[in-house]
Amino acid sequence: VPSSAVRISIDTAAAWIDRNALPLAPEIITLADAVGRVLASAAEAMIDLPSFDRASIDGLAVRAEDVAGASAYNPLSVQVVPAGTALPPQGGAFVDAADALPAASDAIVPLAYVEDGATGSHAIIEAVATGHGVERRASQIARGATLFTAGREIHPHDLGLLVAAGSERLAVTRRPRVACYILRPSGGSSGAAVRDTNGPLLRALIERDGGLVAECRLVDRSGPAVGEALARAVDMDVIVLVGGSGPGANDNAAAAVAATNELVFHGLALRPGETAGLGRSSGGVPIFLLPGPPASCLWAYEFLAGRAIRRRGARHPGLPFAMRRMTAGRKIVSDIGMTEIWPVRDMGQDRFEGVAPFAEAGLAAFACSDGFVIIPEGREGIAQGTEMHVYRRDGRDRDRHTDTMP
Amino acid sequence: VPSSAVRISIDTAAAWIDRNALPLAPEIITLADAVGRVLASAAEAMIDLPSFDRASIDGLAVRAEDVAGASAYNPLSVQVVPAGTALPPQGGAFVDAADALPAASDAIVPLAYVEDGATGSHAIIEAVATGHGVERRASQIARGATLFTAGREIHPHDLGLLVAAGSERLAVTRRPRVACYILRPSGGSSGAAVRDTNGPLLRALIERDGGLVAECRLVDRSGPAVGEALARAVDMDVIVLVGGSGPGANDNAAAAVAATNELVFHGLALRPGETAGLGRSSGGVPIFLLPGPPASCLWAYEFLAGRAIRRRGARHPGLPFAMRRMTAGRKIVSDIGMTEIWPVRDMGQDRFEGVAPFAEAGLAAFACSDGFVIIPEGREGIAQGTEMHVYRRDGRDRDRHTDTMP
Repeated sequence: VPSSAVRISIDTAAAWIDRNALPLAPEIITLADAVGRVLASAAEAMIDLPSFDRASIDGLAVRAEDVAGASAYNPLSVQVVPAGTALPPQGGAFVDAADALPAASDAIVPLAYVEDGATGSHAIIEAVATGHGVERRASQIARGATLFTAGREIHPHDLGLLVAAGSERLAVTRRPRVACYILRPSGGSSGAAVRDTNGPLLRALIERDGGLVAECRLVDRSGPAVGEALARAVDMDVIVLVGGSGPGANDNAAAAVAATNELVFHGLALRPGETAGLGRSSGGVPIFLLPGPPASCLWAYEFLAGRAIRRRGARHPGLPFAMRRMTAGRKIVSDIGMTEIWPVRDMGQDRFEGVAPFAEAGLAAFACSDGFVIIPEGREGIAQGTEMHVYRRDGRDRDRHTDTMP
Repeated sequence: VPSSAVRISIDTAAAWIDRNALPLAPEIITLADAVGRVLASAAEAMIDLPSFDRASIDGLAVRAEDVAGASAYNPLSVQVVPAGTALPPQGGAFVDAADALPAASDAIVPLAYVEDGATGSHAIIEAVATGHGVERRASQIARGATLFTAGREIHPHDLGLLVAAGSERLAVTRRPRVACYILRPSGGSSGAAVRDTNGPLLRALIERDGGLVAECRLVDRSGPAVGEALARAVDMDVIVLVGGSGPGANDNAAAAVAATNELVFHGLALRPGETAGLGRSSGGVPIFLLPGPPASCLWAYEFLAGRAIRRRGARHPGLPFAMRRMTAGRKIVSDIGMTEIWPVRDMGQDRFEGVAPFAEAGLAAFACSDGFVIIPEGREGIAQGTEMHVYRRDGRDRDRHTDTMP
């Protein structure tokens, strides 16, 4: 039975993860798979944008000098030729926005300033400056210019520019392959079938963090069975062992890691998540011991395994939630020496209050919370009126949208 | 050639969309597909949680009254029996956290207070209160209780509770089926092959907004070809026509909609996006006319088609970006009468400045921007020192994480 007295802080754990869970090598993907991936090297424009001189408006392409002085009181006649033919002196050609600029033309007269003339000719009733309605080659971006720097996660808006600038393939950081071994609950005296909450929960979290769930299965909780699963987990970038991390007689996860690999620590000053641990395979792959109770499993994942997966995938290693600065509307009491995650709900007017903690409510705390706060291990709770970062559970700060139209 | 003088405001367009693009009917899905979907009705707990009285810690299950008065100076002996057998008077059974509470026991003595006795018996060195270390059936959540109300988008944390509470299927709003018809560029005089930026960009945006791209193809830009595509777009929930929305001779999109369906408006007081329009099929399906230039296509999508897709999928109809309150570090000049989207970059200290606008830089504006501001149509720009909502391009306000450890 390991002593629970030696618990390391989440800061120490995070520092170990940041030193040992290094970003993976790049791989090449096509643009169709790019959204959500992280650039491993800068993306450059492959072509000039635009790639030729072109019209930026619909209108009549002319030589600006030919229509100098045109006005409603001094309409100037222009001979219209089909686009693509040589522009004669005092000639013009109709173009649409994005069409190539006809040779010899240097300005576009907007359609509003073009009137049908009497004999099939057209009259210009407003002069235009050279370059009006024209976009020169490479005026938006020149071939070789940097579009996005390494480390950027590609979002839909970025994709538009990448396509427009001729990218077809990108070097992105490989997605971490994650193995999840869920230790079969021992069942105890009840023999009751226990629903596996952790498997589906971890799958969703790993995918959220950009990981690939390469394997996720139940494993017997005996030491040899755990050791065998670890030995067979080749080609994995992160290994997660769930359950069997506590001090009970059937809790063999830590001992199995220590016997077959390296156990770095066991016991985390995080509530929920106290019995979490961390190890390393002989190949250097981080192994995380997550507690079996789902709320503890969740928070140990968020601070340990999730951090490693985010970091190996070259993402920001921090918790992937938007934060808002809010004020405690009621006090919350917590124990000194443990970083405590406390579910909270909005009280209005940028104030929050704690709801039933995970220790009492388990995951059900989520049914009535809007977010959570992190109470640092050096504090005995939060006094009423304290300003804190409240992490918004939905990952986006959507609430802010409701009071503005768009 | 439609008049560009009659442009409707984005507020009027949004109001039309909110009245006419109604949320779709529900469908039933399994939990494995639930992340990212929107609940069409409240999700209820299908079972009590926990579903039986159970241990919440590892330890020795006892009758609390049997160990009343135990202390280090007054150890009380307990006869340990296997879990699952009847607890004799002054008896106990070892259990792990989450095991069923042995019949007749009502408290768990933590392992730290259990010592091996001389003759195979065990000594308790600290009394525990009734209920210590015990979680009663339904103490977290009772069968039938509401877990999440209708309209909630399911996030990974929610999934954990849904699994734990016995949900297997959920009623969620059906994903809108979207058809995208990209009008083939007319080519003009150049005959140069034009890269289709809009197709990949719209695919990514529609998926971001929870839509299903049911069809996305190039269509000839003649009126009959557009009309035929619209006529064949059965079973669609939103139809998007891209290109051909301008005043040029080959711009037939609006006329084709007017000829075969209903054209509600053409011309939007939005820059970029001025030539956007909106119609409705005989079956009541909204049809959006998006301009061909990619930056204009993007913003017309965000304010028109995207709003309809988000609304039909029962999502928040607003722009799906986090916002931050920031101060203009330099002035930005815009035209009165047009809502203008202006790309901006961070200057530090919660200040922003405009970068080259979309009219000049096209999508390349995204290469050097961190977000954008919306300059309302009633304003002629933004004075230095003005406080504005800056929309963060990456959809999440991740920057806030960088200064805090987790």
